[in-house]
Amino acid sequence: MDKIEHIGIAVHNLEKANVMYAALLGVEHYKIEEVASEGVRTSFFKVGESKIELLEATSKESPIAKFLAKKGEGIHHIAYAVEDIHAAMQDLAEKGFTLLNQEPKKGADNKWVAFLHPKTAGGVLVELCAERVD
Amino acid sequence: MDKIEHIGIAVHNLEKANVMYAALLGVEHYKIEEVASEGVRTSFFKVGESKIELLEATSKESPIAKFLAKKGEGIHHIAYAVEDIHAAMQDLAEKGFTLLNQEPKKGADNKWVAFLHPKTAGGVLVELCAERVD
Repeated sequence: MDKIEHIGIAVHNLEKANVMYAALLGVEHYKIEEVASEGVRTSFFKVGESKIELLEATSKESPIAKFLAKKGEGIHHIAYAVEDIHAAMQDLAEKGFTLLNQEPKKGADNKWVAFLHPKTAGGVLVELCAERVD
Repeated sequence: MDKIEHIGIAVHNLEKANVMYAALLGVEHYKIEEVASEGVRTSFFKVGESKIELLEATSKESPIAKFLAKKGEGIHHIAYAVEDIHAAMQDLAEKGFTLLNQEPKKGADNKWVAFLHPKTAGGVLVELCAERVD
């Protein structure tokens, strides 16, 4: 993995969380983006070479809504930057990690993304992230 | 915050987790360190400018043992790098964040550390980290 691309954190209310995270991190969020296919509205903060991604559910069927109902607010996933997402997915599958999607899908902040199942990754939902050039 | 210094992840067995994380991250851990005062044995992996810190409990009273019993393996805390830990602690306390220790304490990997209570930090245990010059 090249770096920690971002840490995804589930929040109940994006506007309130943006205020708290601006106070904590000492910077304002630089974008808000809705990813309709995932049922989330996100905001992003830069921290060094990485980002904090806040995730608010936009529907009751959203994975984030289910996460919040079960566990409350908190860390949802770790995203690592990779250069070649297909190669990374194949490499990790061969090593025994379970992929949650077999093809990269479009994520927030102009990325191709793929997820690893927490059961094969030490209880952590792992996201692979590569820059998307449309 | 200057950067994500590390992400702390609770694991049942450090040796097994080291093998899995080496496969996931594509690098070996660069150190193992016991922090007796916290009841943990840790290992560290470099990922870009940040680190993954694996945490294994060394006693039943360890906060990591309690975390594992309650939640199982997974992300335990996010640590941010700060230059002046006293200034950061004072600033965050004035902004309404609750500090779990009022003075910096010695952490792993040659750091001064302080923690923010998850209740004032969106459900996330936040660690502040500054380089220790003994």
